[in-house]
Formats: sequence, C-alpha cells, structure tokens
Amino acid sequence: METHRVIVTGSSGFLGRDVVRELIRQGHEVTGFDLVKPNFEIASFKKGDFTEKNVAMDAIRGASVVCHLGGVGDVYLAESDPALAFKANAYGTKVVCDVSLESGVSKLVYASTWEVYGMPERNPVDESHPCNPESPYSISKLAGELFVRRLRASQSIDATALRLGTAYGEGMRDTAVISRFLERARKGQPLVIHGSGTQFRQFTHAQDIAGAFSTVITSTGHAPVYNIVADTSVPIVELARLISAHFEVGVEFKEARSGEPPSATITSRLARQELGWVPNVSFEAGIRELIEDRLN
Amino acid sequence: METHRVIVTGSSGFLGRDVVRELIRQGHEVTGFDLVKPNFEIASFKKGDFTEKNVAMDAIRGASVVCHLGGVGDVYLAESDPALAFKANAYGTKVVCDVSLESGVSKLVYASTWEVYGMPERNPVDESHPCNPESPYSISKLAGELFVRRLRASQSIDATALRLGTAYGEGMRDTAVISRFLERARKGQPLVIHGSGTQFRQFTHAQDIAGAFSTVITSTGHAPVYNIVADTSVPIVELARLISAHFEVGVEFKEARSGEPPSATITSRLARQELGWVPNVSFEAGIRELIEDRLN
Repeated sequence: METHRVIVTGSSGFLGRDVVRELIRQGHEVTGFDLVKPNFEIASFKKGDFTEKNVAMDAIRGASVVCHLGGVGDVYLAESDPALAFKANAYGTKVVCDVSLESGVSKLVYASTWEVYGMPERNPVDESHPCNPESPYSISKLAGELFVRRLRASQSIDATALRLGTAYGEGMRDTAVISRFLERARKGQPLVIHGSGTQFRQFTHAQDIAGAFSTVITSTGHAPVYNIVADTSVPIVELARLISAHFEVGVEFKEARSGEPPSATITSRLARQELGWVPNVSFEAGIRELIEDRLN
Repeated sequence: METHRVIVTGSSGFLGRDVVRELIRQGHEVTGFDLVKPNFEIASFKKGDFTEKNVAMDAIRGASVVCHLGGVGDVYLAESDPALAFKANAYGTKVVCDVSLESGVSKLVYASTWEVYGMPERNPVDESHPCNPESPYSISKLAGELFVRRLRASQSIDATALRLGTAYGEGMRDTAVISRFLERARKGQPLVIHGSGTQFRQFTHAQDIAGAFSTVITSTGHAPVYNIVADTSVPIVELARLISAHFEVGVEFKEARSGEPPSATITSRLARQELGWVPNVSFEAGIRELIEDRLN
C-alpha cells in the first residue's frame, strides 16, 4: 500500500488523536499539528495555530496529505463564542486550503459534520440533501466545507469532506451527552435529559471515523462529500435508560438547550458503495466499553 | 399605508443610502446605523459597530423593522481580509438577528447576494437552486443568510433574505467594474477587462433594490428568500464597448482576477409574482445616467 506524509490538524483533539493513531498503524508518516500538546505518544508534532498562514505553511510544507480536523468542534463553545467558531472553522479552513494548494499537497480530507443538513426535508438524508444548518457550529463548519469544495474545483487537489456522525469513544469531550450521562452516573447522580429525550443521534465510534480518513487517503476518485455516520439511531431516552440501568441512577428531564441540532436519519450508503466504509463498532459494543471503563 | 420605525444597518454604504432615502420617501421613521458617518442628510443616525452586541442593542431597541445591509460588501476586501468578512457578515449577522429577537423587532430584511449560488447547475437560477458559493464574500454572506433563516424559523420575526443582483448606480464603490471602467474612461485611459470579457452580469440599479426593501417592509406572507435581480444579462465586453465608445478610449484584456463569481442567469420571477417587484431602471437608462454624469 502506498504510504503518505500526512499532517493532521487538531491532532490533540478527541478525533484527531484516533486519526493519528490509525494512520500510523497503516504505515503513514504522520505529523500532528495542534494549538495544544498531545496527551499521547507521537513522534512528530508541531504546535501552532492553523489560522495564522505562516504557521500553517510551516507545518504543512512537505506533506502530501492534509487531514483537517482542527477547529471549534464543541457545539456549545461555538454557541457561546461564535466569533471564534467562524475564525477557526470558516476562515481557518480557508487558510489551510490556501496553504495546501500553495505547498503542493495532493489530497485534503476535511472533518465536516452531519449537522450541516439542518432540519431534514426528507429521510434518510443523503449527500444531495440541501444544507440548512442553524447553529454557529454547523454554519461555520459548512462555510469551511465550501472552501474545501472550492479547493477541489481548482482540480489541483483531491479534496473531500466527510460529514461525520455524532462521534463518541474514549477521550470524547466532557460536554457530549454520553460523557455527561456517564459522569453523573459514576457519581451516583440522576441523569439529566434536556428536552423530551425523543431526539435521537447516530452515535459513530471514533475508531470508525478514523477508519474513514484512512480509507479516503489511500483510494482515489472520490465524491466531494461523504456521510460517515453509523446506521443505528439511538433516542436520548434509550441512551439514558441503558446507562442509568447499569449505574442504578434515576433520570430527570429539563428544558431543551439551544444550539441542539434537529434529529435526522443520515445514510452512509455512498461511503459504503464507493469507499467500502462500514462502521465496525456497534453502538452496544462501544457504549459497553465506555460503561465498563467507568465501572472499574 | 402602515409606516414603521426602521433601523438600516450599513446606512452610509452605497445601497444603504438609497434604502434610507426610499424608506423616508415612503413615510417611514428611519434611523441609520453605521460605523462611519453618512455623507447625506439623515435626521436620525447612530454610529457604531453592529458586531458588538450592546452597541447593536442600543441602536436596534425600539425599532419595529431592521434592514440589515451592513457588513463587508466589497468582494475584493473580503478576498484580502476574509477574517473580517466572516466577523462582519457571518458573526455580525448573528448578533443583529439575536438582538432583533430580544428587542421585539417584528420584521428583518437581509441584504444577501446572487453570488451565494456559485456555479449554476441549471439556468435560470431560481431560489430553489443549491447554494455553493466559492469566495470569502459569498460564503460569509450565505453564513449570514443561514442565521436569518434560523431567525425566521423561530416564528417570532418575519425574516426575509433578498439575494441582490450586481448593484450599480451613483455612489457605487470604486472597485465595481462599472466604476473602474468609468474612472479610466474619464481620464482617457483604455478600459481593462480581466478575463475574456464573456462573463456577464445582471446589473441591478440601487433604486430598484431600495424599492424591493420598501416593498418587503409593507407587505406580509413572504417566502424566506427572493432573488432581486434585473432581467438583462450584460457581457463585460458589451459594457466595455458601450463605455469606451462614449469616451473614445480603447479596451485591453488582462488576466482574470480571483474571487470573481461565475456567470449565471438569475430569475426574479418569484419576487415579481409574490411582491410585485419589477426593476424600473433599464440598464440603458442607468448606465446613460452614470456616463452623462462623468461627461459633464
């Protein structure tokens, strides 16, 4: 298999870390690039802010592939600091695209999100569904994706956006619903559901997401955009029931939070057909691993 | 006719000025709101930056209608300073939407652009055409539009985005192609066409655009988005021919500039049907006025 010199932006983040590890496992020469130092072993790392062009150029020069996962990935941070979300996710992605083009990168893979679709007009939602994102996070991610699509249109770089499902796994951020539930459960506190709990998510394991980046890097002739989302839709009440039963805690309901994306059923059929990507970690297995980690 | 207390953001700008004048003419109580002082008579004006929430709140409080034309309207400025474009056009529009909602505004009209469509997938382009903008200007304007659509979805405010054609008229910015041609022609210099000149634009007169804002303000039951674009497509070579003939100067061709939107044929049929909006200023009349102004 052909191997590449890969730069991973956001390499110290939850998904970035798993992407770095997977690419190293596949034999690629990987350099991490992040504002903060990684909390795991990585042979090659550059510390810096990709929204600064000279810094991004210094990090990216010499790479043949860029996996761009950096930015504001926390929907609640984007809600409270939308100016930062646009600086990092929209403007910063333009910088990464410009630098990739100037430095002769041959491939770029961008971490977009299923949330760019907004309220579904039909289900399931495939890649041709219109994008009507409604939150600072998802609007800024779509803006970034448009720069990636423009880069692809330049025909100099094979640029692909992956619209990722709600990611989970070890190291996920504290504000994610699974993290919040597990943290309260571990302390013996009742779980708190914001809204009715009928909202559902297709939780997609970080290792499956890392697998998608790895697959795109080593294959050619991609569509501009792929949904990378696990099949199973899990209502939040079902998630709460599962975790509360394990930890023997109760469940409470509170007011819905602003910035929550609407429920949608996303299909990854295109990724399955064209990339051969299939999620390997079932929700049952993934959540069991997280629960057992907290129980021990 | 019902009159309103209207705040116009970007009131000192090219289009803002004509919108202010038209709304005053229609009997509305108009307050201008801009970073820079107006160069025309206006009874009520607030100086300030709408991206600062408390400043925007101070200006908007008490208004029943917001016409939001403020932001980076110059595609070349957006190209050279995309961070500013996102701050003003994306984040700033979110601030204006949030403040409008909090202060009880009943109607908001947003100045979007035909450039949000990007490369046309079919012609003519109506409002259902996908949006694939490719420049910092058009991507940041689309991001702003998405916040306006979200505001509308809150069902508290009648929010409408007007996708405006390439605007022209007295006071247009110096970087616009008509201004550049007229300025060189006036000095007896040859006109410079960037690219082949076969690219075309539907030049839409500022007074017709001001008329659209006025119409939306005084009617109800709008679609979320209207194209407000004149019918006539004018190739840039034809524009150059027209101006060069009047001033007896030559025409030169240079390299295409980056950030130029692709040519597209935009239809305003929906605005005609639902708003009764029709452009009143023909391109011939509008350009003649500008030429005569320079000849005298």
